[in-house]
Amino acid sequence: MSSPTLKGLSPAELVARLRQRDRLALARVISKLENRDSDCAELVRQLFSKKSRSRTIGITGPPGAGKSTLVDALTVKYRAQRKTVAILAIDPSSPFTGGALLGDRVRMLRHAKDEGVYIRSLGTRGKQGGLSHASREALWALEAAGFDRILLETAGVGQTELEVSGIADLTAVVLVPESGDSIQMMKAGLLEIADVFVINKKDRAGADRLRKDLDSALKLPQDAEAAQNLPEILLTQANQHEGIDELLEALERRLELLQHSGVAQARRETSLLQEVEDILIERLRASVRESWKTHSGNDLKRDLAEGKIDPISVADLLSGN
Amino acid sequence: MSSPTLKGLSPAELVARLRQRDRLALARVISKLENRDSDCAELVRQLFSKKSRSRTIGITGPPGAGKSTLVDALTVKYRAQRKTVAILAIDPSSPFTGGALLGDRVRMLRHAKDEGVYIRSLGTRGKQGGLSHASREALWALEAAGFDRILLETAGVGQTELEVSGIADLTAVVLVPESGDSIQMMKAGLLEIADVFVINKKDRAGADRLRKDLDSALKLPQDAEAAQNLPEILLTQANQHEGIDELLEALERRLELLQHSGVAQARRETSLLQEVEDILIERLRASVRESWKTHSGNDLKRDLAEGKIDPISVADLLSGN
Repeated sequence: MSSPTLKGLSPAELVARLRQRDRLALARVISKLENRDSDCAELVRQLFSKKSRSRTIGITGPPGAGKSTLVDALTVKYRAQRKTVAILAIDPSSPFTGGALLGDRVRMLRHAKDEGVYIRSLGTRGKQGGLSHASREALWALEAAGFDRILLETAGVGQTELEVSGIADLTAVVLVPESGDSIQMMKAGLLEIADVFVINKKDRAGADRLRKDLDSALKLPQDAEAAQNLPEILLTQANQHEGIDELLEALERRLELLQHSGVAQARRETSLLQEVEDILIERLRASVRESWKTHSGNDLKRDLAEGKIDPISVADLLSGN
Repeated sequence: MSSPTLKGLSPAELVARLRQRDRLALARVISKLENRDSDCAELVRQLFSKKSRSRTIGITGPPGAGKSTLVDALTVKYRAQRKTVAILAIDPSSPFTGGALLGDRVRMLRHAKDEGVYIRSLGTRGKQGGLSHASREALWALEAAGFDRILLETAGVGQTELEVSGIADLTAVVLVPESGDSIQMMKAGLLEIADVFVINKKDRAGADRLRKDLDSALKLPQDAEAAQNLPEILLTQANQHEGIDELLEALERRLELLQHSGVAQARRETSLLQEVEDILIERLRASVRESWKTHSGNDLKRDLAEGKIDPISVADLLSGN
């Protein structure tokens, strides 16, 4: 089980160890996925399986809403129920909001001796569109390692939070009374992705107003089915562990509901189709970059730079059109 | 020149009008690029040209750094020099920081009667990786319309600011004394993309400390060529129009330098290669989505959902491997 013995293991062997909950193997596999190592494809093939008992809960919301504290409080409660928990923190490393997930180290220390908790952050700075791809595959690794609940926490900047809803089983949007009104959220597409709303820091002025505002917005005329599945709105004070029991119950209730209604399965299917697309795009990028290095690619590059050919025509030539 | 006459015009005709500075044609072309209309490819072919007198200056920095005010102040100065200016505001619409560019309307009113200023914002919510693609092509439209300077302003969230440096001729990073220290910026990759640093709101405490800190960070051991081309650091107070003349001079000086050193040409070439890649990726996405609708695609979808085949194998089949 010691680290050196992982050297030279094939993807199949690594994944076999990971399925036996070998943490070093798990860490190695996730790192390979994060770095887009050459054996990613084989790892994904090995990790893929139809069924999983794991459930992934996406936790998203603006920086400063208290997502990490909330994730921490939920972890404690899940552990009290003897459920194992993996925390995957997605950090798109926006140049201007970096360090949002630095609280990680504190958390790691707190749960360091608990074998039932695994904490990992994931970032792929500068790799366009690659973060949700790597995150999706990392989730599969955590599922294969058998964690009961996976808490997928975002930094709350850029497009990541919308992407996260495409790979989680359920998405909780965490807000604070200062987060603004429902019209802004509607504009941003948050009402569409939220299965559960959490208003954290509920002691602050405006918490109740936000709840009422959200409540009315959610009840705007919609079809009967949607009306039945309105997101619940929970109020918490994560740093005081207030409202966490109720939140956990709401999350579990919603997971159950999504399972029974078939929505859970539909979401997994959509995510799988997206995975196929992401794989093909990754291959395309690599192949385009290779093609510039060939003799004819080099000629094309020169003609393009000299304005003798336009980029659409180059694309046509590269794709054999 | 009136709007209805644009109906039924071919891409070539639209671009011909745009080159004659018809604003309605320009607006129409940019909208088509933003919406990824089916005639984008033909538009790009028509817009593409080897040479352009236009220079694009990317203005990036955290929300609240005063980028819009700065862009406005620069516009006034450029107009005093009889240079025409287009402002392209890139808004990735992060769900939690939306509305950063709402100041647009105020600006539009201010410059409404000036034919030498064109203001436009661009957003493609939820379209992964599509924003820098559409922005690059919109820049070509503005170049074809003959603007002397294009100010490309970002909302300062997510990865957009790093992507912007890949499509602008020059990138100015706007900071405020509260923006943090150079180590954070180094980590975020900002030192690599900045051609010019602007410390705005220079009256605030810490402005001089940030300048010194940046200055030392920039002078860390590096090769001789890099040492010659260190970014300048300018201090401004945009809302008082202080330091704007000096900033404009520094920007122009740097544009000149990049031109003479060949860096400008190299950047344009890299951006062209990225454009080819973006075109191919966009086509791939469309073709994958089409393929799910075919008979065999439908079978694959079902097998994937049922766990009978893994996503890597599906990708292999779709790409004919």
